[in-house]
Amino acid sequence: MDIMEKALKFHKDLGGKIEVVSRAKIDDRESLSVAYTPGVAEPCLKIKENPELSYELTRRSNLVAVITDGTAVLGLGDIGGLAGMPVMEGKCALFKEFADVDAFPLCIKSKDTDEIVRTIELISDSFGGINLEDIAAPRCFEIEQKLKERLDIPVFHDDQHGTAIVVGAALINACKIANKKLCDLTLVINGAGAAGTAIGKFLISLGVGDVIMVDIGGIICEDDATLSPAHQEIAKITNKNHKTGSLADAVNGADVFVGVSRPGLLTEDMVGSMNDKPIIFAMANPTPEIMPDKALEAGAFIVGTGRSDFPNQINNVIAFPGIFKGALSVRASDINEEMKLAASFAIASCVSDNELSRDYILPDAFDKKIPIAVAKAVADAAVKSGVARIKNTEV
Amino acid sequence: MDIMEKALKFHKDLGGKIEVVSRAKIDDRESLSVAYTPGVAEPCLKIKENPELSYELTRRSNLVAVITDGTAVLGLGDIGGLAGMPVMEGKCALFKEFADVDAFPLCIKSKDTDEIVRTIELISDSFGGINLEDIAAPRCFEIEQKLKERLDIPVFHDDQHGTAIVVGAALINACKIANKKLCDLTLVINGAGAAGTAIGKFLISLGVGDVIMVDIGGIICEDDATLSPAHQEIAKITNKNHKTGSLADAVNGADVFVGVSRPGLLTEDMVGSMNDKPIIFAMANPTPEIMPDKALEAGAFIVGTGRSDFPNQINNVIAFPGIFKGALSVRASDINEEMKLAASFAIASCVSDNELSRDYILPDAFDKKIPIAVAKAVADAAVKSGVARIKNTEV
Repeated sequence: MDIMEKALKFHKDLGGKIEVVSRAKIDDRESLSVAYTPGVAEPCLKIKENPELSYELTRRSNLVAVITDGTAVLGLGDIGGLAGMPVMEGKCALFKEFADVDAFPLCIKSKDTDEIVRTIELISDSFGGINLEDIAAPRCFEIEQKLKERLDIPVFHDDQHGTAIVVGAALINACKIANKKLCDLTLVINGAGAAGTAIGKFLISLGVGDVIMVDIGGIICEDDATLSPAHQEIAKITNKNHKTGSLADAVNGADVFVGVSRPGLLTEDMVGSMNDKPIIFAMANPTPEIMPDKALEAGAFIVGTGRSDFPNQINNVIAFPGIFKGALSVRASDINEEMKLAASFAIASCVSDNELSRDYILPDAFDKKIPIAVAKAVADAAVKSGVARIKNTEV
Repeated sequence: MDIMEKALKFHKDLGGKIEVVSRAKIDDRESLSVAYTPGVAEPCLKIKENPELSYELTRRSNLVAVITDGTAVLGLGDIGGLAGMPVMEGKCALFKEFADVDAFPLCIKSKDTDEIVRTIELISDSFGGINLEDIAAPRCFEIEQKLKERLDIPVFHDDQHGTAIVVGAALINACKIANKKLCDLTLVINGAGAAGTAIGKFLISLGVGDVIMVDIGGIICEDDATLSPAHQEIAKITNKNHKTGSLADAVNGADVFVGVSRPGLLTEDMVGSMNDKPIIFAMANPTPEIMPDKALEAGAFIVGTGRSDFPNQINNVIAFPGIFKGALSVRASDINEEMKLAASFAIASCVSDNELSRDYILPDAFDKKIPIAVAKAVADAAVKSGVARIKNTEV
């Protein structure tokens, strides 16, 4: 059986990857009267008096919604929310398995930005945080932005920021080995969709010297009057030298290539044209922009991909469980830039100097220390940046 | 500590009455690749081809949303959705504890009927059924009606129909003991809100001879031009003899009193004026329309209340877990009249002829047989009435 057949059988046999259980044992009149009527009136009235108590008296304090409209599910595209639910359930299972965060999957049957925003807003009191998932660009930017403005709980589009945070961690450690400074780097991102743009913005705030975004039409440059609004925005903060041309022109002399595009787009010649000790993160799935062996032959110093069968897997699961755990632990109203940067550094520091090597720049995804370290760093950053509603950073 | 203090401490200590857990063990690359990427793409594509497979490949087959707008929470009134969440979580805990049905609580931050309907519609693909809870009348009628028209999964406002079904079961058994026929009964319902109207309609379809609804303005009669739309509708099928007057006029000569109103409204004189072997279901909470001892002194033959400290507790928990379990087991597109009637008879038949007495007309709520018997009857009725999408009635 190949992996796809195995996965189908696994899903059929299991009948759903999540389950809602009762934490209250209700098996006699006494327990019923305490967990339900008439006793339950008391916590209700307390929350009515002080809404903040919803974090103490309901599950909200540890509960994230994983929400999609199904428009960009994995690499499958717009398959609809219902068909996307196995991914959402999987994400929820990962939240629980990796960080003991409760997460519940919801699909929204609409492609209208305002309607999606309004729907999430109306049910947001039921949760302590919102993880947006597999929503196509550019809709995902607007949905996230509007929700961040309207809600006082964290809203986080993992496909954008989770990926950016893990790439950031990988880059921090790659630079240590390559003995390069972030501020000196010229870094090319191929693919300027949701993930690519988020990675670009995040790496700039991490301190990368210059980022050059490349999309299907070539290098994105501020001077181009035909850019989409999302590309106009990213153009303002990238490509300092107003380069134009193709991907080959962009990578010529660059230190780092980050691919969130399509298989095979990075040639060996292009790798050969890069600066000393090229760093390649080729994350197209399932086939990278360049295969690791070819990249190394062509002179790459460090290669990372999205795949688990090569070294240096760049995998969001290293980030999102701990990020939400940390944000929830201090009832953060947001997951802001400071918290994302803290997450990146925390992930990077999970690889000790002894372990660090060209083939080991990111910690093992199943290392239980990671979500704890990430949560601690994120909670601290939330408190320091003033978005925490409580100061308890024990996670 | 009184029950309210106990309940508050219980809720604080517990930190939420529900929990979302993972049914998939994900602790190595192999399990990750089957439960999540890349394997998860396969169940997604299968659901895309055939949406019905969402019932096999996700948790939807056993999952109910418990949804409120917080406008009629317990007897507390319009306390808002957030403050209502302890009740919603409690309901979800009961679903799981009594019938192993997964249920997830959602509060909607809106009081606009269309907006509530649209919100629920947009997220409905995430669930196998919708349990509406603690929504005020008359909004609750319209919300339920519109959702029933638009969704192909069961929608059930428990405060209306759950209560009606349990009252129906109590009445069936009370009539056995009193040796009365349903079709011969004159039955007075005091309180024509959501629960009262639903009870009235349901008891008529159960076969009760005549129902007389009484509200704050007295007996509801078709001839009254000032009736609200909801009361106009119920007036058409009740009060065959066009009675007018007060509650005292209504109960004079009646066989049954059903109270979903306020404490103390039924006097001993009124009970005395009723037909032979009066049956009294006084369900005002926490204090009934008449206390059981007084009702019995005044000549009542059978008395039921909403309270667990008197005999014959009329409690929805006898009904809703099994009803949804049955509906989900055959992927019913609706919970229709046939299924509700089947539930009533199934509950009634859970009390054997040996057990049946004036003080024991309803089965013990904690009897594990009840949800199974109810689910079986409801599933059978769904299949027979043509709303089941599969025929498997094993529950």
